[in-house]
Amino acid sequence: MSFFPTVASFEAALSALPAADEASIAAARDRQAQLTKPPGSLGRLEDIACLLAGWQGRERPRLDRGRALVFAGNHGVAALGVSAFPAAVTAQMVANFHAGGAAINALTRAAGLDLQIIALDLDHPTADFTRAPAMTEAECLNALSAGAAAVEDELDLLLVGEMGIGNSTSAAALAARSFGGRAADWVGPGSGVDSHGLTRKAEVVAAGLAAHELAPRNAFETLRRLGGREIAGIAGAVLAARHRHVPVVLDGFISCAAIAPLAAQNRAITDHCLAGHQSAEPGHARLLACLGLEPILALGMRLGEGSGAAVATAVIRAALAAHDGMATFAEAGVSSGE
Amino acid sequence: MSFFPTVASFEAALSALPAADEASIAAARDRQAQLTKPPGSLGRLEDIACLLAGWQGRERPRLDRGRALVFAGNHGVAALGVSAFPAAVTAQMVANFHAGGAAINALTRAAGLDLQIIALDLDHPTADFTRAPAMTEAECLNALSAGAAAVEDELDLLLVGEMGIGNSTSAAALAARSFGGRAADWVGPGSGVDSHGLTRKAEVVAAGLAAHELAPRNAFETLRRLGGREIAGIAGAVLAARHRHVPVVLDGFISCAAIAPLAAQNRAITDHCLAGHQSAEPGHARLLACLGLEPILALGMRLGEGSGAAVATAVIRAALAAHDGMATFAEAGVSSGE
Repeated sequence: MSFFPTVASFEAALSALPAADEASIAAARDRQAQLTKPPGSLGRLEDIACLLAGWQGRERPRLDRGRALVFAGNHGVAALGVSAFPAAVTAQMVANFHAGGAAINALTRAAGLDLQIIALDLDHPTADFTRAPAMTEAECLNALSAGAAAVEDELDLLLVGEMGIGNSTSAAALAARSFGGRAADWVGPGSGVDSHGLTRKAEVVAAGLAAHELAPRNAFETLRRLGGREIAGIAGAVLAARHRHVPVVLDGFISCAAIAPLAAQNRAITDHCLAGHQSAEPGHARLLACLGLEPILALGMRLGEGSGAAVATAVIRAALAAHDGMATFAEAGVSSGE
Repeated sequence: MSFFPTVASFEAALSALPAADEASIAAARDRQAQLTKPPGSLGRLEDIACLLAGWQGRERPRLDRGRALVFAGNHGVAALGVSAFPAAVTAQMVANFHAGGAAINALTRAAGLDLQIIALDLDHPTADFTRAPAMTEAECLNALSAGAAAVEDELDLLLVGEMGIGNSTSAAALAARSFGGRAADWVGPGSGVDSHGLTRKAEVVAAGLAAHELAPRNAFETLRRLGGREIAGIAGAVLAARHRHVPVVLDGFISCAAIAPLAAQNRAITDHCLAGHQSAEPGHARLLACLGLEPILALGMRLGEGSGAAVATAVIRAALAAHDGMATFAEAGVSSGE
């Protein structure tokens, strides 16, 4: 079963995004106003609870079934010297995910989340995007569909993350093509390249942008020309989650870049999304601003894998615990002030 | 049993602060360097794990026994129109804590923490500090001792929080006397006073500072003249935790103000402390900078009760989970890059 059998089906899904349930949001806001605390004093926690209320369609949202999806893919541009690690590390880390030894394993265990690893054709890197589109139409649709297929109706929360040596280069190209700016504005050290590698990354991104300059400027073409399989998987999952009314926690620079082409075409795509964190990657703050998202955390993390989203889930859990577990002024017999 | 029977015993404890175990910190740093991630890519999580390693004296710190202490006290200055809530709310909220209905109840449950409420002589507010010292020497020593008595050796982590109508006024006075600046630099809306109340708060703080201008400038005198019982309780707990090698998570503006007089006398007092969050109270960012602390969270919270520290504990738990649960490059067979 393919969720996006044609480009038109992807376009249709992106253009007809469902809205949150306003009645549930209003009920949640009303409940927050009655809880034993000064109004607004839980700050962002109140907003998080109300956002989840709107997408889950219930006054008291829950987090019994949360899942992190980690997509993995390999990149043609990895051969161009843009990463501190060899491309073989993508598959090695996927093995590490399956063995339970990576950060995302420990962090999802701590956050009470399921973890699903979706490795997409690791033996076949995407094409070098400085010379050709990274993916064919069919390859990109397959990756989008793989992402969509992993999202179930019953989920309370979905996290998206990635692993792919070279993918911060792809992410910088996606961000630049979606939101403008020069290559150098969007590249950063990623997993840790030195200044020489950073210069090389900017050159590769600039070459990629130039190579596809005249291509149609729509979400699908941008994704397939400059993205990667794991990146399209994230985009497909976020889009499917929206249609299933499942709120999403984005991870870092690459997860956000995966939806940048979608946001450039339909800004409302981020309405069901929370930004888990602001990473140390220099372009991430700018990208979050372009997406209209305020990060929950800013801890200088720059690992990917969904790690920032997983840590942020603990904050979301706290938000829901306060929203659901607190007494009202009437229940507690506390004076509510003026 | 009194932990601080005399002012001299408090002074001695503050002047002879133990240091962290450097060998455990080095072992934890070495472990972080071997885990399957780019070096430093977990950002602040790595620092948190290493800080706890140093104070717990083990390479892999744990969080099996974490406890939040919430101190409550009443303030003479509450009668001067400095709060949006009547002073009776302090006792009402203590009843709410015991009944399990407050934010800190829900948040400590979610964070897997014990919660202990320590209400200090609520029927006897401190004296109005614009006219007299808030506490006698004996009252201040008793409150310090009550805080110290609640800290057990076996704790892995201690959180401190407070409840006390009027105590953001006291906190502003403590911060101003400890670190300088005018009253207006340190007052804020607290639980939600309007602009008239804010002006009144600044006047009360300025009057308090003037009334005690010529008093000896040491931690004990500042605490007893401008503080309150719950504030001294926090100071006593943080000081005792240091001597018991228990790391501490501070909450918001008032918790930080409670140790401001101690920090002004011995800057090292914050070495075993993490700032759970930066609150919405305007003076908190400045106070954190004076204390040399970087907050874990900044979520616009302004509730007190230890609520920000409790949410931050979820991040600390994530830090320890990654530190303890991840595989090393050697264990996982992953290439470690250059």
